[in-house]
Amino acid sequence: MRGLVIVYTGNGKGKTTAALGQAIRAVGSGLKVLILQFIKGGQRYGELETLEILKNAGLTAEIRQCGLGFTSRGEKENHKAAAAETLKIAREEILSGKFDMIILDEINYAVKFGLLTEDEMLDLVKIRPPELHLILTGRDASEKLIEIADLVTEMKAVKHPFEKGIKAQKGIEF
Amino acid sequence: MRGLVIVYTGNGKGKTTAALGQAIRAVGSGLKVLILQFIKGGQRYGELETLEILKNAGLTAEIRQCGLGFTSRGEKENHKAAAAETLKIAREEILSGKFDMIILDEINYAVKFGLLTEDEMLDLVKIRPPELHLILTGRDASEKLIEIADLVTEMKAVKHPFEKGIKAQKGIEF
Repeated sequence: MRGLVIVYTGNGKGKTTAALGQAIRAVGSGLKVLILQFIKGGQRYGELETLEILKNAGLTAEIRQCGLGFTSRGEKENHKAAAAETLKIAREEILSGKFDMIILDEINYAVKFGLLTEDEMLDLVKIRPPELHLILTGRDASEKLIEIADLVTEMKAVKHPFEKGIKAQKGIEF
Repeated sequence: MRGLVIVYTGNGKGKTTAALGQAIRAVGSGLKVLILQFIKGGQRYGELETLEILKNAGLTAEIRQCGLGFTSRGEKENHKAAAAETLKIAREEILSGKFDMIILDEINYAVKFGLLTEDEMLDLVKIRPPELHLILTGRDASEKLIEIADLVTEMKAVKHPFEKGIKAQKGIEF
C-alpha cells in the first residue's frame, strides 16, 4: 500500500475540517494518526476534546498544537521559532514509523508567511516513508507541492458568513 | 445563537470529510450531531467505528446510512424509495429539537440524480428551527440552495489519484 500526499488548499472553509474528517475515518479504520498544527495554539478547539476520547479508547489519534495562533498576533520572530520547532517535530515523527497518517495543518500558510521555506516543506514530503499518508493544509499551496502531490483539492469560498456579519461560533469555527 | 446553513459542493475530494470534521469539532464542543447519509449504505466506512466510540463515551454523534450506495448500482426506483424514506427521517429529526447540527450527506447528489426534487431539499432548510446548524454536501448544489445558504465552499479537484491509476484505499476513501 502506497501512502498518498494530499493537499487541501484554497481560500474557502473546509481545509482543516476535511483533514480532521480524514483523520477520523483513518483512525476508525485502524490507522495511527498524528495532527501537527503549525499555526494554531492555545485555543481549545472542539476537536481536542473529541480526539482525547478516542485516545482514551485506545486509538492513536494525537493532536499537537505547536503554533502561536495566527500571525497577526505577536512578533514574527516568535512565530518563526515556533515553526522551526514544529518542523523539527514533523521530521522526527515522519521518520519515526509510529504513524500511518500525519497531518501538517496550516503548513502552507506557514510557508506563505515566510515562517518556513518552501524547500523545508517539500523536504518533509520527500523524506517520508512510502507507506505514510501525508496531508498538508493551508491556503496558497506552492506550485511545487501541487506538482508532487497525489491528490489536491482547492476549497473555494463561494460565500462566507463573516461577509454577512455573522460571528465565529462555538462548534463551527472552534 | 443562529444556526448556519453550510454547503460543501464541487467535484473535488473533501466534501463529506469536511462535514465529518465539522461534526467532530461540534461534538467536542458539546453540540449534538446527526449525520444522515442519502447515498451511502452498507459499506463499513472508518467513521462509523469512530462515531461509535464517541457515542459510547456519552456524546451525541449519530450516523445513519440510509442510501443504497452510488446509483450506478441497482434500480433507480429502489434508490428513489430510499431517498424518500431518508427525506422523511430528515424532516422528523430537523423538527425534533434533539440535535444542534444535522448533516445531510450527499443530498445534492440525490437531487441532481432525480431521487429528490429541489423543492423537497430546499424545504428542509426552510423548516429548520433557527438555532439548528444544517450542512448539505454533494456535488452540483443547486443555485437556489447556494442563494439561501450562509456558507458555501466549492471543493475543486485540482488533482485526483485515480487519474494516476492509484486505487481507493482503506482509511482514505472508506
